[in-house]
Amino acid sequence: MSLNFDEQMKKRVTEIKSVIAGYLPEEDGFQRTLLEAVNYSMLVGGKKLRPLLMQQTYVMFGGKSSVIKPFMAAMEMVHTHSLIHDDLPAMDNDEYRRGKKTTHIVYGEAMAILAGDALLNLAYETAAKAFDMEPDNPCIGRAFQILAGKTGLYGMIGGQSVDVEYAGKPLTEEQLHFIYRLKTGALIEASMMIGAVLAGASGEELEKLQQAAANVGLAFQIQDDILDVTGDEETLGKAVNSDEKNEKTTYVTVKGLEQAQEDVARYSKEAIRLLDELPYENEFLRELILHLIHRSA
Amino acid sequence: MSLNFDEQMKKRVTEIKSVIAGYLPEEDGFQRTLLEAVNYSMLVGGKKLRPLLMQQTYVMFGGKSSVIKPFMAAMEMVHTHSLIHDDLPAMDNDEYRRGKKTTHIVYGEAMAILAGDALLNLAYETAAKAFDMEPDNPCIGRAFQILAGKTGLYGMIGGQSVDVEYAGKPLTEEQLHFIYRLKTGALIEASMMIGAVLAGASGEELEKLQQAAANVGLAFQIQDDILDVTGDEETLGKAVNSDEKNEKTTYVTVKGLEQAQEDVARYSKEAIRLLDELPYENEFLRELILHLIHRSA
Repeated sequence: MSLNFDEQMKKRVTEIKSVIAGYLPEEDGFQRTLLEAVNYSMLVGGKKLRPLLMQQTYVMFGGKSSVIKPFMAAMEMVHTHSLIHDDLPAMDNDEYRRGKKTTHIVYGEAMAILAGDALLNLAYETAAKAFDMEPDNPCIGRAFQILAGKTGLYGMIGGQSVDVEYAGKPLTEEQLHFIYRLKTGALIEASMMIGAVLAGASGEELEKLQQAAANVGLAFQIQDDILDVTGDEETLGKAVNSDEKNEKTTYVTVKGLEQAQEDVARYSKEAIRLLDELPYENEFLRELILHLIHRSA
Repeated sequence: MSLNFDEQMKKRVTEIKSVIAGYLPEEDGFQRTLLEAVNYSMLVGGKKLRPLLMQQTYVMFGGKSSVIKPFMAAMEMVHTHSLIHDDLPAMDNDEYRRGKKTTHIVYGEAMAILAGDALLNLAYETAAKAFDMEPDNPCIGRAFQILAGKTGLYGMIGGQSVDVEYAGKPLTEEQLHFIYRLKTGALIEASMMIGAVLAGASGEELEKLQQAAANVGLAFQIQDDILDVTGDEETLGKAVNSDEKNEKTTYVTVKGLEQAQEDVARYSKEAIRLLDELPYENEFLRELILHLIHRSA
């Protein structure tokens, strides 16, 4: 079973990388350096978890069209945009990400800011290709609204701003949950919700799915904090103990390692329970979510 | 006639500010500092030229719905996003803009990067409200594509990247035109094109309008270069001679002041000539474009 999952995972991630690559620009013209920086940032690896969750939720809800593809690529672009800007000297000042030099180390700070901007914009430009594919599909506008809402002031960017503002200062548990829910959770919620919406999910189903996705997001981020303490630098492809270095309050510093590990398991199971209440099935998606507990990178 | 134009201009800009203000966030919640930085950046003044061009082109093509409003606000958000990031220490390192301290001076560099990101995203979130207003209007998706295309790698951000990369280095006239066409021209083209598309313009009309807008964009940017040399710091609300300080090749350094002034007049007249070929009229839009020649700020 486990090997089978790993094989499936590998196959699907390869497929997703190929979908994403199809939406990346040619490195040509006067703005070639920018185009290179954009492609460099997109091609340095990563788990492609968000497009994978989107695709598998789409399949679970019975989606069959390729209209999901531009949204899968768009989601990874939004995510990569946030990584480039998070790594900047004015933010986390990280030199390595996924085992490779960060964008500003390779291309300089100005070009990294612009590459991040360009990727956020390219996400919308890419998603907007869906209008040409199915001009009369009213779900595309709704998917657009979810993408923009979960990325913005009340989503990922809002969460990141609180994370940055309180770096080195004590956080209440309420603030920490707010940051996790927004900074990491919002894009995971958006990924699964867009998959469902494009497959024609009802409002009630979408509500339940959002709750499930929120649990996935929390479990994922807490596991990230755990790996920053227990992880292996080589496997992770980035420096460990960076939270301590940056004097960050994390779930582990607030609750302790053991409680954090228990909570990852609890949130993952709650996500599965909520998914199981929906009248659809996707065994791979179920396993993927459970897999998040055991990941080491 | 001239006073009348000034009065009309003032009235319309006031209206546009009120439309934009309606799409700005409440300053509330844990991410309050980010929300304040976003509103600060949006409310420090400016000519609102892009939403004004969009609105007036919409009116010219017979548009009558309020579906234009979220796009007007979105355009100003994209523009303000670019100003915040252009002013950053890693880019132009400017302390003043429109007579007020720049966003990173007031809120710090990290928050300014995030405020810029948030505004670019809020542009799409705001424009996406149009889907709720007219769910069956196929022009909205097309307007979205124009906004994203003209902002991105082959529009404003692409132009800005070449401007940044060649700062302090000699530019060919071809490169200079490329930068002007993209960095400044692209959003002016998008503004007028979105106005036309949402009012139901044909492909042929749109093509002509884009040419007219490209001429407006060139005239506008060359006038900017001229004002950097001949302008008054107080009237402009920003430092003059900044191009010299930043060792930038500009239209004025390449062509000389006199030729630059002649070319502003020429491009403006060409824009008017192209507009006059369209079977629609808007006297205010005509005057607005001619006005660009005489502006002192």
